[in-house]
Amino acid sequence: MSMDKIVYRPVRDEFAYTFGGRMPVAHVRSGDVLQVFTEDCFGGLVRGPADLPSQVCRMPYLNPVSGPFFVEDAEPGDTLAVHLLSIEPTRNWGVSATFPHFGALTSTSQTATLQPPLQERVWVYEVDKTAGVVRYRATGSDHVVDLPLEPMIGTIGVAPGGFEARCTIVPDSHGGNLDTPQLRAGATVYLGVRMHGAMLALGDGHARQGEGEACGVGVEIATATTLAVEVIKGVPTLWPRIETDRAVMSVGAARPLEDAYRIAHRDLVGWTACLTGLDELDAYQLVSQAGRAPIGNVCDPNYTVVAAIDKQFLPSPAAAYGGAHDRLRLLAARHR
Amino acid sequence: MSMDKIVYRPVRDEFAYTFGGRMPVAHVRSGDVLQVFTEDCFGGLVRGPADLPSQVCRMPYLNPVSGPFFVEDAEPGDTLAVHLLSIEPTRNWGVSATFPHFGALTSTSQTATLQPPLQERVWVYEVDKTAGVVRYRATGSDHVVDLPLEPMIGTIGVAPGGFEARCTIVPDSHGGNLDTPQLRAGATVYLGVRMHGAMLALGDGHARQGEGEACGVGVEIATATTLAVEVIKGVPTLWPRIETDRAVMSVGAARPLEDAYRIAHRDLVGWTACLTGLDELDAYQLVSQAGRAPIGNVCDPNYTVVAAIDKQFLPSPAAAYGGAHDRLRLLAARHR
Amino acid sequence: MSMDKIVYRPVRDEFAYTFGGRMPVAHVRSGDVLQVFTEDCFGGLVRGPADLPSQVCRMPYLNPVSGPFFVEDAEPGDTLAVHLLSIEPTRNWGVSATFPHFGALTSTSQTATLQPPLQERVWVYEVDKTAGVVRYRATGSDHVVDLPLEPMIGTIGVAPGGFEARCTIVPDSHGGNLDTPQLRAGATVYLGVRMHGAMLALGDGHARQGEGEACGVGVEIATATTLAVEVIKGVPTLWPRIETDRAVMSVGAARPLEDAYRIAHRDLVGWTACLTGLDELDAYQLVSQAGRAPIGNVCDPNYTVVAAIDKQFLPSPAAAYGGAHDRLRLLAARHR
Amino acid sequence: MSMDKIVYRPVRDEFAYTFGGRMPVAHVRSGDVLQVFTEDCFGGLVRGPADLPSQVCRMPYLNPVSGPFFVEDAEPGDTLAVHLLSIEPTRNWGVSATFPHFGALTSTSQTATLQPPLQERVWVYEVDKTAGVVRYRATGSDHVVDLPLEPMIGTIGVAPGGFEARCTIVPDSHGGNLDTPQLRAGATVYLGVRMHGAMLALGDGHARQGEGEACGVGVEIATATTLAVEVIKGVPTLWPRIETDRAVMSVGAARPLEDAYRIAHRDLVGWTACLTGLDELDAYQLVSQAGRAPIGNVCDPNYTVVAAIDKQFLPSPAAAYGGAHDRLRLLAARHR
Repeated sequence: MSMDKIVYRPVRDEFAYTFGGRMPVAHVRSGDVLQVFTEDCFGGLVRGPADLPSQVCRMPYLNPVSGPFFVEDAEPGDTLAVHLLSIEPTRNWGVSATFPHFGALTSTSQTATLQPPLQERVWVYEVDKTAGVVRYRATGSDHVVDLPLEPMIGTIGVAPGGFEARCTIVPDSHGGNLDTPQLRAGATVYLGVRMHGAMLALGDGHARQGEGEACGVGVEIATATTLAVEVIKGVPTLWPRIETDRAVMSVGAARPLEDAYRIAHRDLVGWTACLTGLDELDAYQLVSQAGRAPIGNVCDPNYTVVAAIDKQFLPSPAAAYGGAHDRLRLLAARHR
Repeated sequence: MSMDKIVYRPVRDEFAYTFGGRMPVAHVRSGDVLQVFTEDCFGGLVRGPADLPSQVCRMPYLNPVSGPFFVEDAEPGDTLAVHLLSIEPTRNWGVSATFPHFGALTSTSQTATLQPPLQERVWVYEVDKTAGVVRYRATGSDHVVDLPLEPMIGTIGVAPGGFEARCTIVPDSHGGNLDTPQLRAGATVYLGVRMHGAMLALGDGHARQGEGEACGVGVEIATATTLAVEVIKGVPTLWPRIETDRAVMSVGAARPLEDAYRIAHRDLVGWTACLTGLDELDAYQLVSQAGRAPIGNVCDPNYTVVAAIDKQFLPSPAAAYGGAHDRLRLLAARHR
Repeated sequence: MSMDKIVYRPVRDEFAYTFGGRMPVAHVRSGDVLQVFTEDCFGGLVRGPADLPSQVCRMPYLNPVSGPFFVEDAEPGDTLAVHLLSIEPTRNWGVSATFPHFGALTSTSQTATLQPPLQERVWVYEVDKTAGVVRYRATGSDHVVDLPLEPMIGTIGVAPGGFEARCTIVPDSHGGNLDTPQLRAGATVYLGVRMHGAMLALGDGHARQGEGEACGVGVEIATATTLAVEVIKGVPTLWPRIETDRAVMSVGAARPLEDAYRIAHRDLVGWTACLTGLDELDAYQLVSQAGRAPIGNVCDPNYTVVAAIDKQFLPSPAAAYGGAHDRLRLLAARHR
Repeated sequence: MSMDKIVYRPVRDEFAYTFGGRMPVAHVRSGDVLQVFTEDCFGGLVRGPADLPSQVCRMPYLNPVSGPFFVEDAEPGDTLAVHLLSIEPTRNWGVSATFPHFGALTSTSQTATLQPPLQERVWVYEVDKTAGVVRYRATGSDHVVDLPLEPMIGTIGVAPGGFEARCTIVPDSHGGNLDTPQLRAGATVYLGVRMHGAMLALGDGHARQGEGEACGVGVEIATATTLAVEVIKGVPTLWPRIETDRAVMSVGAARPLEDAYRIAHRDLVGWTACLTGLDELDAYQLVSQAGRAPIGNVCDPNYTVVAAIDKQFLPSPAAAYGGAHDRLRLLAARHR
């Protein structure tokens, strides 16, 4: 087990725009700790009000991810546990925008109407790591307000397998553009391995985002993200799961939004039953009364919902994935 | 303005099963404080594991509400503000259940499939007001766990107007079965008046529920709910809104779930713009980054999502509805 | 059994705007033949390009229906069969329009966005009964084209029961604003009776409409509609069904659209199994390969889909509803 | 221009399971006529009641397509026109099935519930090309009925571009598993080219299917499909379009089903306006009254709806795509 942190800083043409279909940028091993530099979803090209995303960005060069990393010994049927130790903004600003026909409160290429798009506009936020805030500044008036800095990784996933390569804007069972604030430092995400080497990649940091990412874009930042990986052999994982000190969570990604809710809750009920010995209906009941269901995004090709239950409500649960979360947290802590 | 609390305790055949289409049970005035006794969603008929709801309840006698109350001087185009001072369970137990083809993790009469229903089962919870907990007890194993007692009102609304009478199980723009944990003590709900006298009614208390009310049923309780009402003249309200000391919120009710999200956020963006002078795109941006979006229900005829933003992020906002929340909170406090 | 046709021609303030909650305008008996005059969905107020619906119409006075008719001996648990003998336009014009935030290709009050509405515009069609055409005339250019005159009834239903009264714009299991071209002359519609007397009402004639009624409005006409009614005792009907000489059909009404599809097909599979003795999976297979699924509307509060299977593919089926369609067709024929 | 038909008969390990990410199996030129042999969606492995698909098939080896064909001179921004001259079943049988948690009338991996799957069952159909029928045979009773033989191609598309490779089970803007009966002999499908060479592939023949493909599986057959291709330079196509002698059509693929409807109709309205000089609202109105909207599938990862309008209702339209349909039909006719 390596005690040195592996540092990966991509150069521009190394970024990936799909999960799957790419050669690895590096090989890592179970137990490794990585520091990965990620670019923002616009490739760093939107820096001010005049940089309209639809003009400065070019499809498909949106939402670059760093990776993929080939994880030694990861095989289909295994699970890759990724513990997020820290997510550090690497610039003192972040950016958000409206984008034509993208977002929850506009017609889109899917929810297609005859209406013209909303105005495209850019908001630049100051990121103050010391104060722990991001500063919103209205464009049409003088209002300025500080919002809590709550860095998260919008996009993390593995190769989808089945010969597929999926655009990094898509969230699905392989992970991808989950866009949930639950992917913050301290969280361990479990991803089902679908091909030899797993092919982990990540990017799309947000200084923060509201639940649902209504306008389609968070406060987008470049990051230095430190993470620890572990391969859990012989344990498959169907949909992404997240574990924190407080809770276990399942992520669903689908349209319509209720299907994302259903997937996440179906998975959490099954997981809860597994962890606790409750029968499925008892687990369903417990999750129904004690569960939380934070919405991730309502703008991406699949919407995301997280189903969560606090560990304190589970009967002395068997440690999830053999205690991987605690193990990785300890491992990562040595690298602070 | 009355300083006496009006107490209303319905007898069985006084319960209403629709919003609209009913004669009022009492007249109240702006500024009145009421204590309203409510029955649980099963009419109190489900008291143990053998009381299967589909057998002991009979349609349409589900989800009884207490009322309607005729509010003097409330006219279409006004808003009725209802502050929830307290929601007290009146029994030391609550009950939940699965119900055939109802709930988020089963096919339903709408999401119709050829599969047989899940097993119908009842869970009885102990409600311990002193300890502030409800006790979950598994039916198929020994697991027992205490969950926080967080009483809420599942159903509150006014007559929908337009000659309509809507089943109390339905949430829509008139309120109704919103089933959101945000309707707890301390909250003020704003409902658009659609007919002379508003015709306020409420019921369906929950000792608690998870977000989405996955199994279709919360921890159902009878309550004594104390509330204060105020008519805000000449201010219309399109969708239900909620105000607490912390936040302003809009409620959307629709299918699919993303439409509930859209309605709530469209309304909150407009409200935020109104309260703060931000233009709509600036308000959209602020809500996108600072907003919360707790899911209410994913089981009722319309699903519900709440869009919320904390007041601290708004620029010295004009008090919503002329300060009704603060005014009612003070008024109600005198009745503790 | 009456051999005289009952003629009902409403005066203005007799129109109903809900199913349920109204006193009957007349009593009829099983076996009666009625000629019912219906007004168009705008109450006849939109007659030219300057009559913008949002200006000349006032909520809730949209989509008037003629009735309700109290059908003697119709009780909850029975089915009301209504055979449409003829649907005659009573004027030589029809009208369509865009309406702000209503229709399939615009954001709406449910699919809420921040975009302004599409332009409101009126199209007046000439109805030529002799030639059997309706004449489309472009408003922004010279294009004129004749479309087949295919009159249909947009709205037909019974009182929903359960103390409810539903706006006539809503389609649901009680019928209502189904907006499907299948409701043309020659069709028999089966509606489950939910309260004493059934309380049949109808209106909203269309000279024709495309599948889905994309812009939200058909070619709206006033009609003289001749129909024959029969009460089928002791046979319940859950969702509206339609029978023609060619096919049996089930109607689903819900959102999202796939749930309308599911309801209709779930019902048709069950009905097919009943009529033929096929087991449910065999019926599912047969409907899957031989079925048609014409979309009704994708604009109303619930969307509608019809599931249809041609009788020729069913194994010498037991006559549906005891042969009501054939019986009513013969009865009605005597009244031509 | 070649006057010889190019015949392509894949050997087993040549089949593709994605659009994109594959080397071409052959190069063809604009104006070529191809005869392509396709295998059924089960790879020919389901041949009788005992061959349960979930047992004899292995993911991701489902829905094989023949190709991809590299089309010379096809570049991003061009359109590939593919005329289907004939679709010949190559065996005298076809097969359908239920598949666990797949189909419209069951919960699925997306519409996830706690219910067990429906029974998995296989139906074998006789295909009688001479009589032009496929013979349905019930499994649980004696019912046998002949349905019209209406061969179609379920899956046809190009590489999606953007470095993506999409599973052949998915329909989207690149084509793919559209599963619409409109893709029959005589139709020309237009596909937007997204990468050098277009990379056309096809498969998944159906002897017939009902609208929506309710059970998730048509009457699956292997085919010899003859098609003619033409590259239309400099004309982009966003969503698949279909042209027949009778009609022009746009295909939408999305969830929920109303978004597939919206995409198809948004596209057809724009296309109609382009072809005829009508302004967009006039085109919207015309499509709303004259349009048809046959549902393709309600079971695949994206649902499909086709929007169609008959050419006779369009004002002497400019020939679509410069008359490609007529040109290819003539070309193909020489190869009968």
